[in-house]
Amino acid sequence: MNAPDSLAQLLALTREPFPASRKIHLAGSLHPQLRVPMREVALSNGETVTLYDTSGPYTDPAATIDVRRGLPGVREGWIAARGDTETYSGRPRQPPDDGARDREDARIESLRAQAAALQRAPRRARAGANVTQMHYARRGIVTPEMEYVAIRENGRREWMAEYLADAERARRLRGNPMGACIPEVVTPEFVRDEVARGRAIIPANINHPEVEPMAIGRNFLVKINANIGNSAVTSSIEEEVEKLVWAIRWGADNVMDLSTGRNIHTTRDWILRNAPVPVGTVPIYQALEKVGGVAEDLTWEIFRDTLVEQAEQGVDYFTIHAGVRLPFIPLTARRRTGIVSRGGSIMAKWCIAHHRESFLYEHFEDICDIMKAYDVSFSLGDGLRPGSGADANDEAQFAELRTLGELTSMAWKHDVQTMVEGPGHVPMHMIQANMDEQLRHCHEAPFYTLGPLTIDVAPGYDHIASAIGAAMIGWFGTAMLCYVTPKEHLGLPDRDDVKQGIVAYKIAAHAADVAKGHPGARARDEALSKARFEFRWQDQFNLSLDPDTAKDFHDQTLPADGAKVAHFCSMCGPKFCSMKITQDVREYAAAQEGMAAKSAEFKAGGGEIYVPLRRG
Amino acid sequence: MNAPDSLAQLLALTREPFPASRKIHLAGSLHPQLRVPMREVALSNGETVTLYDTSGPYTDPAATIDVRRGLPGVREGWIAARGDTETYSGRPRQPPDDGARDREDARIESLRAQAAALQRAPRRARAGANVTQMHYARRGIVTPEMEYVAIRENGRREWMAEYLADAERARRLRGNPMGACIPEVVTPEFVRDEVARGRAIIPANINHPEVEPMAIGRNFLVKINANIGNSAVTSSIEEEVEKLVWAIRWGADNVMDLSTGRNIHTTRDWILRNAPVPVGTVPIYQALEKVGGVAEDLTWEIFRDTLVEQAEQGVDYFTIHAGVRLPFIPLTARRRTGIVSRGGSIMAKWCIAHHRESFLYEHFEDICDIMKAYDVSFSLGDGLRPGSGADANDEAQFAELRTLGELTSMAWKHDVQTMVEGPGHVPMHMIQANMDEQLRHCHEAPFYTLGPLTIDVAPGYDHIASAIGAAMIGWFGTAMLCYVTPKEHLGLPDRDDVKQGIVAYKIAAHAADVAKGHPGARARDEALSKARFEFRWQDQFNLSLDPDTAKDFHDQTLPADGAKVAHFCSMCGPKFCSMKITQDVREYAAAQEGMAAKSAEFKAGGGEIYVPLRRG
Repeated sequence: MNAPDSLAQLLALTREPFPASRKIHLAGSLHPQLRVPMREVALSNGETVTLYDTSGPYTDPAATIDVRRGLPGVREGWIAARGDTETYSGRPRQPPDDGARDREDARIESLRAQAAALQRAPRRARAGANVTQMHYARRGIVTPEMEYVAIRENGRREWMAEYLADAERARRLRGNPMGACIPEVVTPEFVRDEVARGRAIIPANINHPEVEPMAIGRNFLVKINANIGNSAVTSSIEEEVEKLVWAIRWGADNVMDLSTGRNIHTTRDWILRNAPVPVGTVPIYQALEKVGGVAEDLTWEIFRDTLVEQAEQGVDYFTIHAGVRLPFIPLTARRRTGIVSRGGSIMAKWCIAHHRESFLYEHFEDICDIMKAYDVSFSLGDGLRPGSGADANDEAQFAELRTLGELTSMAWKHDVQTMVEGPGHVPMHMIQANMDEQLRHCHEAPFYTLGPLTIDVAPGYDHIASAIGAAMIGWFGTAMLCYVTPKEHLGLPDRDDVKQGIVAYKIAAHAADVAKGHPGARARDEALSKARFEFRWQDQFNLSLDPDTAKDFHDQTLPADGAKVAHFCSMCGPKFCSMKITQDVREYAAAQEGMAAKSAEFKAGGGEIYVPLRRG
Repeated sequence: MNAPDSLAQLLALTREPFPASRKIHLAGSLHPQLRVPMREVALSNGETVTLYDTSGPYTDPAATIDVRRGLPGVREGWIAARGDTETYSGRPRQPPDDGARDREDARIESLRAQAAALQRAPRRARAGANVTQMHYARRGIVTPEMEYVAIRENGRREWMAEYLADAERARRLRGNPMGACIPEVVTPEFVRDEVARGRAIIPANINHPEVEPMAIGRNFLVKINANIGNSAVTSSIEEEVEKLVWAIRWGADNVMDLSTGRNIHTTRDWILRNAPVPVGTVPIYQALEKVGGVAEDLTWEIFRDTLVEQAEQGVDYFTIHAGVRLPFIPLTARRRTGIVSRGGSIMAKWCIAHHRESFLYEHFEDICDIMKAYDVSFSLGDGLRPGSGADANDEAQFAELRTLGELTSMAWKHDVQTMVEGPGHVPMHMIQANMDEQLRHCHEAPFYTLGPLTIDVAPGYDHIASAIGAAMIGWFGTAMLCYVTPKEHLGLPDRDDVKQGIVAYKIAAHAADVAKGHPGARARDEALSKARFEFRWQDQFNLSLDPDTAKDFHDQTLPADGAKVAHFCSMCGPKFCSMKITQDVREYAAAQEGMAAKSAEFKAGGGEIYVPLRRG
């Protein structure tokens, strides 16, 4: 199969807009040139509903997409206009960047050449400049990125008003923000302030101008991340680009490229140039490839060079396991499942092999200097996270968390945007302590957790075992949830696994948003419930997280098109429908109110009335 | 397709024991004749793990199964020995019992005749006797059913001891029972006391001697229920028996037969005679069929007759929507989704059509008289449960709940075992109020909830949206979780949907057990995690909730048999494995301890040692 054709073919598959949906764009007021994308769903009753949209230009039929050219650089003008960056020749590409090449073929060479041709000249901060969103925020500057985020977070409130108008319901359903400070309306200034305080980040490398800016923070909508990336055993470049487009279609707000095998650099080229969402990586994975997989051969210099390589490509955040310190490593010796983080175990191996403190910890400020030249955000890795419920909340985990708090302060000293990673495997009753400890030690920097998985006995279903923990910790204040797919612990996710993991995590994130009381979050639930109650089947499908599956499941029982407008469903059948009865109830209630009014008149005239409230 | 053959064929499919598993039976001490079934899993390292087993004789190769003969009546001797019951001719079968017969065929007639031949003569309490487990419990009698439950709940503690021995871990992972009083060891006397207090029920109709007794109560393991049953639109008798066997295979502790269409009586015959788990029904569904689907034509006499019909067949609990009272109905008029409970809407329609109080409420003590003659338990239906998050925790719902509390007290006056049904659709932050209100008003009678679904926008994935709520409310004290399948709101579940729903709910129930700190609950997690960490792949699969899927998912990435014993997995590949590094860490830690000992000697001698805890 010819590579460019196969890519084109894949993308033809996933460019279909969602049913009854069109892409709309909202403009900014501070920055009128902004075009913030949303998905507008047309309902069969003439209403429209507008939804947060992560899918990028792929779902816009008006967009011309060619993966060999990449997406347009929407942020290019904004970055250039700030006048604090310069283009330069960049680090020359080196053979080890793509790992061992013992089994080369022409197809890979062609992809590599095409990927290289895709790249712009890299950009970096001018000497002495700091180009992070946090740096601007702290100087009082509201960037286009910040206004973009504000518009995106608010959504179109017009359609929501009707659904949220009922005062009794608003009071009864008022969220419990668990200490979050969620504003009624997100202003650009609010975004700036959150970024300045470090309570939110906008991952947006200046070399990733294709990104549609988004925020990760406790006072914004809960976000989700999907991991993609090839490994030494399986997977290919085409599959990874496919996974990206597929992942954002279903709602991934971020993706992490966790490639560990061959062609890491080239895979990342393809992903970044075609990614409208922030892309994170774990640079130590590539560094390890460069030293042939021998952890103890890693050096600061190789690692540093890898950071620059990836920053120039446009990676938006780096997972850095700088909290895996030499003295913490023995704390894991008695664990049920030791160190399960790949990055954590690489660093543990290095530390004990050299009997030295981690070079990531020792060079942390040097890393900050690189981050701020490109606006790469930190995702401070939890290399000592528990790999089983048995190891949850132990001293190794919390010692590292406290260190991540120290490192957060150090990153902020450099105005480097920072989030903090969290577990892992944690029984339900121990989840809140994770959030509390993170808030206490990490100064409200956004928390970014993997699940957590609430039990260990569900391989094959860990997207569910972890969605429970993810929903809870999202409610408690976690800003981004890293998805878990059904293949977790068993194998690498395929296309369908990625979708299953994403939908499970959209459920968790939305459940958290509703529980926290994000303004407007429950409007979509109300709109879908109304459609459900009124037997507007197509609207119910179209408002759901996965219209295809909802429609398909309905068709399995009642395939006829007529059933889509039928005032019954397969649960009760045509003869009897519980929902139809409500109309009778409403008429009865109205009649009762009429009677109550009459009875009040009667009482006012001195009479009495028997109300049969007690049986007798 | 010939009916008996198709049944036989189905059961051949689902009689396979779980991998590396055998059925064992534990004897009682008060009642030495008890044979309490468990599943013993042989691990590759020579250990064995024993698991709670709901699958009945179907997974026992030594058992002879013929669905046309039904299961052996394990409780027959115990019931007869109590000497307080009598057999009698029973209510004659009547044509409307199976609904309309306009499209009869020979196959159905044959199934009907075979089903009739399956039935024993019904048994009832002798005049003046009360044969409920609660009645015995309150008189201080420990029945065989109670000892059976005690043995079953404890499991085999021998294998767990090793996994639970670590004192630091036991302290760190100590559950939060949220007010439950969970004993270290469940004694028969404890079971008696819980049943006497009404905090637990043992659903066990004297006409369902095939049942392997189990308990539903806050201080026992959290149970799950799977709904089966045909409907007017689809499904057949064979499918329903298949679903039963399939549902208990994957862990359903109870099933409810929610049939609403044709052949209700015959379907139930087949299900009950082949069910080793308690079976619940909603008798109003069948009563409605008898009046041609016209709710207002229902009468107490028809309903009463249906209760007797089903009690004689052996139904273990009845959902009775006696809390849907006339004055509460108008409270639902302004709801987003009105009344969504089918039983609730039937009763609402009846009440408003007649402008009369519910006959279920008015005849509640008459119903108790029937229940206690057969030991049918109440499942007090929540006919006004919310059908959307928008309607959660509203006045209609809580007014009904308070009435269910009154009815609980009335049922207990008759020593009738009682549990209380709960919602439904409830956002996360409003779940705990449901448990608190239920405990407050229903005097600790077991709570039995449907989900709750935490959001409304996930049709096609409502097993996940609801497993989140189910896990939480299970932790808070709900005794049984009614499953939700992926087809909820869309269609009737097929075989795979039933499995998906059950596994999601086993996850929720187990997560709740671990969080509550049920003794031994986390031992299975520890055993699986240990197997995972030691690369005992087959043991990991075999200890999981669904060994088939775990193995299948692993095979999709690494199909070779060699990979099952390989010390690596597809995530990191053969070159680098995070788990392997732990061995190095352990050696390092041991060496450090050796050095620490030396350093202590050195210090004791007046020296000092530099511990590099801070970077410098």
